[in-house]
Amino acid sequence: MGFHRWKRVSSKITYHERFIRARKDELESPTGERTDYVYLEDPTPGTVIVLAISADKQIPLAKQYRYPIGDFQYNLPGGVIDPGETPLQAAQRELREETGLTAADWSEVGNYHPMASHFTRTAHFFIAKNARQTTHKQWDCYEEIEVVWMPAEQAVEKILSGAFNDLELAFAILFAKTKGFFE
Amino acid sequence: MGFHRWKRVSSKITYHERFIRARKDELESPTGERTDYVYLEDPTPGTVIVLAISADKQIPLAKQYRYPIGDFQYNLPGGVIDPGETPLQAAQRELREETGLTAADWSEVGNYHPMASHFTRTAHFFIAKNARQTTHKQWDCYEEIEVVWMPAEQAVEKILSGAFNDLELAFAILFAKTKGFFE
Repeated sequence: MGFHRWKRVSSKITYHERFIRARKDELESPTGERTDYVYLEDPTPGTVIVLAISADKQIPLAKQYRYPIGDFQYNLPGGVIDPGETPLQAAQRELREETGLTAADWSEVGNYHPMASHFTRTAHFFIAKNARQTTHKQWDCYEEIEVVWMPAEQAVEKILSGAFNDLELAFAILFAKTKGFFE
Repeated sequence: MGFHRWKRVSSKITYHERFIRARKDELESPTGERTDYVYLEDPTPGTVIVLAISADKQIPLAKQYRYPIGDFQYNLPGGVIDPGETPLQAAQRELREETGLTAADWSEVGNYHPMASHFTRTAHFFIAKNARQTTHKQWDCYEEIEVVWMPAEQAVEKILSGAFNDLELAFAILFAKTKGFFE
């Protein structure tokens, strides 16, 4: 059990449409037992998430409608890495496109697997300090993003009271808080 | 754009195997434009994640092999809500089954959508204080979980250095740290 000693006997894509690609692997245990493992394979190079912080400790939140949950949600700027981009390049591009902000001081928070039991995806988290408005927003065709500026400490309070429901946003803001980025 | 003013014209399940169910909706904008939205529909009532804390501020981590990423990962105890269970009942059951622990003092951290752009899932986070060993682990058929106890503050340090890669674990531990649960 646990699958780390199981051998992959076969593997095939069982569904693929847009960002959703399912794969089914047939596995064999050391004792010859067989089972299938069905999971999502990320058809993209991964995603980036950017917590930008202005000189006066405000953070830009991206308010957007999330069709699968039927509601608006506060997120951090971010998106899918384009082929050939490094994660940092993608982070800088997504921040610029979604908010019109640039920043000179970038740090990498770490890489996370949002749902490692069923999804191969890696999400790369960044913090961009001293972010400031330098250009205009450029939205993708189906994006409609409202940028809402919030004092960092107010965002922390909202997370502690359960007012946000995006896990990536909640994690990144508490990471920055704990590491002293808001001081 | 943004889809909040779009009307659902049709909806169908385009794939379903085990925990992976894809749905495709045809949408129509107020101006008559049509598009498809492909997303994952959670075939379960949602998931629970439990951060348990012992009286001496240690936390049990669940180390398990995650087949889609081809590596071991530290997670928090948790799993899928069974039909008819409340999220709290599921949290108590999963903690007991995966670690053999029970706790008298439970608080709900909040509900999160792990990937609201493409997945309907809700994940319910709980903190269980004064957790202690009262029974034996009962694993599901395909689970092989090693329970690793770690001082809470050491886990925080590991998150700040990027040593963990499970987002749910990292968020829950920083939430508890920020809210004073480790003091």
